[in-house]
Amino acid sequence: MSLIHGGDVEGFVRDFGREPVDFSANCNPLGLPESAKRAVIESLDTADRYPDPLSRRLRETLGGHLDVAPESIFCAAGAAEVIFRIAAATGPKHALLLAPGFAEYELALRSVGCDIDFHYLSPENDFVLTDSLLDEIRDDIDIIFLCNPNNPTAQLIEQELLLRILARCREMGVLLVLDECFNGFLDDPDARSLRPFLTENPNLVILGAFTKLYGMAGLRLGYCLNSDLGLIEALERAGQPWCVSSVASAAGIAVLDDSEYLERSLKLIGEERVFLIEGLERCGIRVIGSGANFIFFRSPVPELGRLCRERGFLIRDCSNYRGLGKGYYRIAVRTHDENLKLLEALSQIMKARA
Amino acid sequence: MSLIHGGDVEGFVRDFGREPVDFSANCNPLGLPESAKRAVIESLDTADRYPDPLSRRLRETLGGHLDVAPESIFCAAGAAEVIFRIAAATGPKHALLLAPGFAEYELALRSVGCDIDFHYLSPENDFVLTDSLLDEIRDDIDIIFLCNPNNPTAQLIEQELLLRILARCREMGVLLVLDECFNGFLDDPDARSLRPFLTENPNLVILGAFTKLYGMAGLRLGYCLNSDLGLIEALERAGQPWCVSSVASAAGIAVLDDSEYLERSLKLIGEERVFLIEGLERCGIRVIGSGANFIFFRSPVPELGRLCRERGFLIRDCSNYRGLGKGYYRIAVRTHDENLKLLEALSQIMKARA
Repeated sequence: MSLIHGGDVEGFVRDFGREPVDFSANCNPLGLPESAKRAVIESLDTADRYPDPLSRRLRETLGGHLDVAPESIFCAAGAAEVIFRIAAATGPKHALLLAPGFAEYELALRSVGCDIDFHYLSPENDFVLTDSLLDEIRDDIDIIFLCNPNNPTAQLIEQELLLRILARCREMGVLLVLDECFNGFLDDPDARSLRPFLTENPNLVILGAFTKLYGMAGLRLGYCLNSDLGLIEALERAGQPWCVSSVASAAGIAVLDDSEYLERSLKLIGEERVFLIEGLERCGIRVIGSGANFIFFRSPVPELGRLCRERGFLIRDCSNYRGLGKGYYRIAVRTHDENLKLLEALSQIMKARA
Repeated sequence: MSLIHGGDVEGFVRDFGREPVDFSANCNPLGLPESAKRAVIESLDTADRYPDPLSRRLRETLGGHLDVAPESIFCAAGAAEVIFRIAAATGPKHALLLAPGFAEYELALRSVGCDIDFHYLSPENDFVLTDSLLDEIRDDIDIIFLCNPNNPTAQLIEQELLLRILARCREMGVLLVLDECFNGFLDDPDARSLRPFLTENPNLVILGAFTKLYGMAGLRLGYCLNSDLGLIEALERAGQPWCVSSVASAAGIAVLDDSEYLERSLKLIGEERVFLIEGLERCGIRVIGSGANFIFFRSPVPELGRLCRERGFLIRDCSNYRGLGKGYYRIAVRTHDENLKLLEALSQIMKARA
């Protein structure tokens, strides 16, 4: 198995014998909330029990939080598992994906032998999705994955375009899987979500995760929403019944109540995003996208990933994304101190090159 | 989704407003080891990071413990996930299963559209597997699942017969998946394992789990062993890369060093198994199988599961196992106090009936 994603802290530790500062995974820089830690520790007394296969308490709490019926929620060990379950449960023959986009959509679809068409986003247009996608949504397509804001480009899809895509998918009998894993990082998450359209559109699946927003990638907790109860049941049957661990469930229930952590996170990320963008531009790096909690840019210096790594920073080299060449990078917005140090390193790298 | 397994503590709590004593799931009665708790709590400081997709430290530690090369190990969120990955990765068309047997083998195979032949174990022979299975292993079979000792019957498969089955599978090009999840509870685990035969038999997959032996069902950690590196890679590709949570990994690494917990568990279970068997027989219940940490019996009283439930005990009603009718039950061996109370309740139930 080759490592295709960011976040390879273990590999860095093995190479350098110390911890890196990890800008390569898009997680909340405040780390796991104290509320989640406490909930996990409390849950350890009953961690010898199998988790509830129905995730009853988690789905009830999450449903209340999202204003979605608990029976329209499927929970699993991270959104990545949900993606594989969707592929396994629906067995699509022909899919349409954006390029660049999150690699797991393609890997999950390939694992069930699905053919894939790619809609290439244009670098001239800073990889913003346009309505040229609509013509490619035909009735021979079974499934489309979109991510808003898109990963790795950090570009938002306009709400009006999203609704036209949803209508077109419905008309053509296409399942639209909309990945909203980064929605919670936006300034206006509710206005940017398609959640209100779930009931009327059984062909709409919305992906969500606790991973990034609540800094709990290591615990594994994600979900999807869909108003077709037959699909929810097919997702449950497409894998083991105990995919949500009891510790992830306990942490998930706890953080949904922790509005203080979320407010503090969003304030920090909002300020630090601006700080990072300005710093990058001072270094002569043009930012392409900066929706949510990560920033996408093209480096004028070759080998920027390696140069950062040698200085103790992991950044996401995006050259292995379909539709991107060398020179594209993604960084997460982290704490002020970490961002400052990265900018200092970048500044040194750029000066050394000049 | 319907609940087909034991361990539905949540359902009991919803019905009765209090906690049951759970004999229906086969987990170590000592609960999660302190060593695992400490490791989980320590790991929370970095739980905001993605887990290592390669599970490098876990596989190295487990490989050392089992005397198996780390690259021959695939880890996932419990043996149940491994079972679904095996089905997805190998895409078998025709399988052979024992009845009764663990339900997830059938569910995983059905999820990939596999046809299944069943070898029915005979109640006249107390459900012990005999060499009559050999004739059913033909070259039109792609995969066989066996569990030793078998769940729910708690009957062992003779080592000599296992080796004949393995040879026959190899000859016929059949993948043999041998579930050794309960092996660690046996008096002579090494003599009962097929691990020494892995290298020479790439058609042998051995399943293992931390779930039961180390009382960590809620954390989700299992694995399989196989000497065909192509199959290990196919298992990795058949689902998300981050299936092992960082907390499960930390707990797994810690418990492999905790020989004190294991010794204490095996001593307790050995003594209490005898205590339970004698108590059951005094109640007029004949025990059918008692390998490992659970006991399988037929109740002379109808509705024994319901009657126990009303008294606060969950026992496993096995009537929904293929090949079993009403009246078969499975109980886990638990602590002395818990076992004593269950036996008291059973004694009352039997007397009320007489």
